[in-house]
Amino acid sequence: MKIAIAGFGSVGQTVARLAHQNGHSVVALADSKSAIIDSSGIDINAALSSKKKKLPLGDGSMSDLLESDYDVLIEATPTFIGDAEPAFNYIKTALEMGHDVVTANKGPMAERYDEIQNICNGCNGSLRFEATVGGAIPIISTIEDMDPQNIISIRGVLNGTSNFILERMDAKSLSYDHVLLEAQDLGVAETDPSFDVGGIDTALKCVILSNILSDGGFSLSDAKIEGIEHISNHALDLAKKESHTIRLIGESTRDGIHVSPKLVPKNDVFAVRGTQNIAQINTKNGGILDLIGPGAGGGPTAAAIFADLKRLQV
Amino acid sequence: MKIAIAGFGSVGQTVARLAHQNGHSVVALADSKSAIIDSSGIDINAALSSKKKKLPLGDGSMSDLLESDYDVLIEATPTFIGDAEPAFNYIKTALEMGHDVVTANKGPMAERYDEIQNICNGCNGSLRFEATVGGAIPIISTIEDMDPQNIISIRGVLNGTSNFILERMDAKSLSYDHVLLEAQDLGVAETDPSFDVGGIDTALKCVILSNILSDGGFSLSDAKIEGIEHISNHALDLAKKESHTIRLIGESTRDGIHVSPKLVPKNDVFAVRGTQNIAQINTKNGGILDLIGPGAGGGPTAAAIFADLKRLQV
Repeated sequence: MKIAIAGFGSVGQTVARLAHQNGHSVVALADSKSAIIDSSGIDINAALSSKKKKLPLGDGSMSDLLESDYDVLIEATPTFIGDAEPAFNYIKTALEMGHDVVTANKGPMAERYDEIQNICNGCNGSLRFEATVGGAIPIISTIEDMDPQNIISIRGVLNGTSNFILERMDAKSLSYDHVLLEAQDLGVAETDPSFDVGGIDTALKCVILSNILSDGGFSLSDAKIEGIEHISNHALDLAKKESHTIRLIGESTRDGIHVSPKLVPKNDVFAVRGTQNIAQINTKNGGILDLIGPGAGGGPTAAAIFADLKRLQV
Repeated sequence: MKIAIAGFGSVGQTVARLAHQNGHSVVALADSKSAIIDSSGIDINAALSSKKKKLPLGDGSMSDLLESDYDVLIEATPTFIGDAEPAFNYIKTALEMGHDVVTANKGPMAERYDEIQNICNGCNGSLRFEATVGGAIPIISTIEDMDPQNIISIRGVLNGTSNFILERMDAKSLSYDHVLLEAQDLGVAETDPSFDVGGIDTALKCVILSNILSDGGFSLSDAKIEGIEHISNHALDLAKKESHTIRLIGESTRDGIHVSPKLVPKNDVFAVRGTQNIAQINTKNGGILDLIGPGAGGGPTAAAIFADLKRLQV
């Protein structure tokens, strides 16, 4: 397929690098500053080199990219909450022009799901968004295949930064503030960490899952969210005495979204580590499925995007 | 969709019971002795009642079923190794008539994969077989979506009877022979248990997975198999001292299939219990995925069959 990639950060770059071996040709590429369009296939190494040197990718713009000749738009720009722009507009434009879209962007699918579905229903393009929840883990496709009506609820650990902090606090009896600084030094946590440790990232993912279960109706404002900022070493020590630990758990049902730190047995499937995520899907007749895997990073997110492209081709 | 169900054991009965709520109409139903055909939809409760009383389902035959008017054949007859008959012939007939087929039968997909794929390539019907490996766990669809070329290997615990025996031996220090008799009394193990404890069931599943990775070429005779019959309490005790236990592990690669009992850490994802199965999928760029869930039983197997039906409809 001829793919256009909007967003050239870690995910966009990995998708571009692996496109060829997955049978795709990259014909348009844009970051927030410029774009390059080449219907015969872009020289990815040259683009990666430009990006590294902070040079423009080309002399085109995002508008040029959206209007170029491609089969699928891979939308991998940063997530913003609220109006979810500019990603929402990129997706809308591509769908309305009849293109398929694969997005890794939680913003539009959590904050403006109903609008997006309305656009989908009225156009020829299809939209897929496996990469928005749990990286490489096939959560959305499993719910889709089993049929949302057969899913009762989904519980998950869906934020690696929170795992990292809780693990370090637990293992070394270090304070939250100390470990947060460490995580920021290592690049595991952002300068403003509230998106991760405040539970917003987890909540956005759970909003998306509740939207799938209920065919829409939810946005971030519907989520009840408690982050891990107030977890004390005392709480972790008490947990440890009972062979438990603490993880930031998100829960999606048709009734709403809950995110909060919870006690989990030390050896439980929910006690995932580092960038590992878990989604526990509670089904009506198929029992409980535990899907575990890398929830973040360029490779895993790109793998989910290529899986979506594969499903578009069937 | 109008579905025909060949085989009316635990799986066939569950599919029939749940067909309506999954949006399907059962228009033909057969067990090994007779068949009932009704284009306006079969009375499932009456059929279940006949089955319970060991009465014939109707006055038709399996041939009548195969020639009736349906969209998809659900093939849920017992698994036989070697020529994989009669299931192979049912699947072949339905595909050649242009119908889609969903099978839960390991025999044809392990023993005659290449022949089946040749038939598929030359006809209008599609074939899906998620239910053959790991019950409700979406193993085959995940491999398919990620593209077999991106999968390095799959390791799994795929046989619940072996789990049951190893768990009981470990927990109670009971001998293999003692626990096997218990399992047979409980109906967890067959009178001839070799299919499960001898590793053949696990091997068939791994053969299917290796066939998917390599686009065919494997049958049961290619698998190196060691069962759990010779596991001693001494071996389990030694394992326990190191916080390990033993599970029957199957491994699928493009080079072949290995099944044997292996040491696994007590709290490892591979230390699944009872009818739980795990498939660990090692991917090229997406990291390692652990998919865990109920690997057997009417409900989970039916859930996999309905997931296949869903994918046929897309």
